[in-house]
Amino acid sequence: MSKTILLDQRPVGMPKLSDFKFVTETVPEISDGEMLLETLYVSVDPYLRGRMNDVKSYIPAFELNQPISSGIVAKVISSKSENFSAGDYVTGMLPWKERQVSDGQGLMKVDPEGAPLSAFLGVLGLTGLTAYLGLMEIGKPKAGETLVVSGAAGAVGSIVGQIGKILGMRVIGIAGSDEKINMIKSDFGYDEGINYNTTENMVEALGQYCPEGIDVYWDNVGGTISEAVLFHINKFARLIQCGAISMYNDTSFPKSISVHSFLVRNSALMQGFIVFDYQAKYPEAILKLSQWLQEGKLKNVETIREGFDTIPQAFLDLFHGKNKGKMIIKTV
Amino acid sequence: MSKTILLDQRPVGMPKLSDFKFVTETVPEISDGEMLLETLYVSVDPYLRGRMNDVKSYIPAFELNQPISSGIVAKVISSKSENFSAGDYVTGMLPWKERQVSDGQGLMKVDPEGAPLSAFLGVLGLTGLTAYLGLMEIGKPKAGETLVVSGAAGAVGSIVGQIGKILGMRVIGIAGSDEKINMIKSDFGYDEGINYNTTENMVEALGQYCPEGIDVYWDNVGGTISEAVLFHINKFARLIQCGAISMYNDTSFPKSISVHSFLVRNSALMQGFIVFDYQAKYPEAILKLSQWLQEGKLKNVETIREGFDTIPQAFLDLFHGKNKGKMIIKTV
Repeated sequence: MSKTILLDQRPVGMPKLSDFKFVTETVPEISDGEMLLETLYVSVDPYLRGRMNDVKSYIPAFELNQPISSGIVAKVISSKSENFSAGDYVTGMLPWKERQVSDGQGLMKVDPEGAPLSAFLGVLGLTGLTAYLGLMEIGKPKAGETLVVSGAAGAVGSIVGQIGKILGMRVIGIAGSDEKINMIKSDFGYDEGINYNTTENMVEALGQYCPEGIDVYWDNVGGTISEAVLFHINKFARLIQCGAISMYNDTSFPKSISVHSFLVRNSALMQGFIVFDYQAKYPEAILKLSQWLQEGKLKNVETIREGFDTIPQAFLDLFHGKNKGKMIIKTV
Repeated sequence: MSKTILLDQRPVGMPKLSDFKFVTETVPEISDGEMLLETLYVSVDPYLRGRMNDVKSYIPAFELNQPISSGIVAKVISSKSENFSAGDYVTGMLPWKERQVSDGQGLMKVDPEGAPLSAFLGVLGLTGLTAYLGLMEIGKPKAGETLVVSGAAGAVGSIVGQIGKILGMRVIGIAGSDEKINMIKSDFGYDEGINYNTTENMVEALGQYCPEGIDVYWDNVGGTISEAVLFHINKFARLIQCGAISMYNDTSFPKSISVHSFLVRNSALMQGFIVFDYQAKYPEAILKLSQWLQEGKLKNVETIREGFDTIPQAFLDLFHGKNKGKMIIKTV
């Protein structure tokens, strides 16, 4: 028997535990070309909230009474597939099930010697790819420029900031607690950090820490924090829109300061970034990220929860900033 | 004696006639290397409103008690310059003066045989360059795509729409009167037009006229019209921010629907456009625009006012949509 987590109802506003339903099912026998997988690590990510709404977006919405899926690392328990053997480790987008049968489509083998298995959901997974490709492709960073990262202690933000430092930028992070601010400075090498929960005037604080203005802004959050950034952008600034966690749970269309005049005055660019648009560049990005990881220039930072049953709560906790780095559930 | 128009006080909100002051001065004798110019045509443009505020922008603010300047076509009355002769026609950014002495810096000779003189302030001037370069460089238009233009009957918008049609796009214009809607369809070849003053639900109207969504949006206006466009943008849409006439007179920071989630969901791009950033491409653009003009594919549309004294009122009238195409004052 194996547990599965279904979307029981579409969340309205902030998601809650009762939006999810646990069911127990028997795992079918494997046929030729198939294998049996045991889930080891599950990634929960803010963008999943978007898929719980029934709206057109870059990936289809989750269906009601069907399993949620996300990035997973699993072990092959038994196999009738030519491409995978018992004992292999794989990663890919998979439904939230303890055990499941797969034909291997969309899955990739990973080498547990190369990096800790959970890293394939973090710095060497979609999270790292998002940070690297978003910053390089839209941010076009240059040494000496100033980079501001919101959600700086989160899964993607913590990697973006570290890459900014590797590339020789001045990097300022925005996060929601003094503990996180200390961490981004001491562990990730950020030059300065701003705690938005204790800072009365964000516009002033950004001005103080960015005396030469802001060239690249990694926008993980949207909302009032991003408004404050607009007042400091330089000519030709690049604003990377990578999810807007402050808005995922909004049920109406939130209002912000209009960006138009800021963009016009500064010939600035705002662009939405979805890593799936850049699949052709994954190999180049993984190569670079692995190299930095091995050289010790890049740290893989994780918040690990334990137990399959904790997945929904871990997901909810993302919206209260309870993770440092990548939020991962160790299920076995 | 010659009249000059000074900025008497910085407008607060909507500008008014009393923000300007007329003075009469004697015109100095010309020295070696100089020439005497008589102003023939004056361009008034919405962006001048921005220069009347004392804020950092892409061009310096006008100074109090100093003349306003804008695009002007003038005739050389007498010359001690090696580069210009009496009888030449020149264009460039010049102060609002009936007559003035110039050393020719920044001025360009124009050929009255090549096109009507006023066209050098319109389709063959910064207006045409803005339309062409903004659309090509940021919009990256493709035949078959859908282009929406706000301020569609205005100086820049009327040219953008015509270029869109030349390039084989479906082109929808937004303007503020039925007369303008008729004009953009019959004179400029727009496929459809929406009168925002009589349309209750802009989101619905855009959906009706853009059944395949919106790929390129030329945003001349900002505000609620631009909000409605967001609901229809396609994957990889390009939103060209070219001034925001609805906001030039705002004294606080206006709020709009937050663009973040729309940009993220559609991997869409918004970019501020200022023609001065693309000077290297002026010759290529002028060549193309002249060619289309001579072939009769592009129409130069103007609202001509007469008399130097009407300049301030013509400028104010821009903010009430009283121009069709380029607003120009014929001063002689």
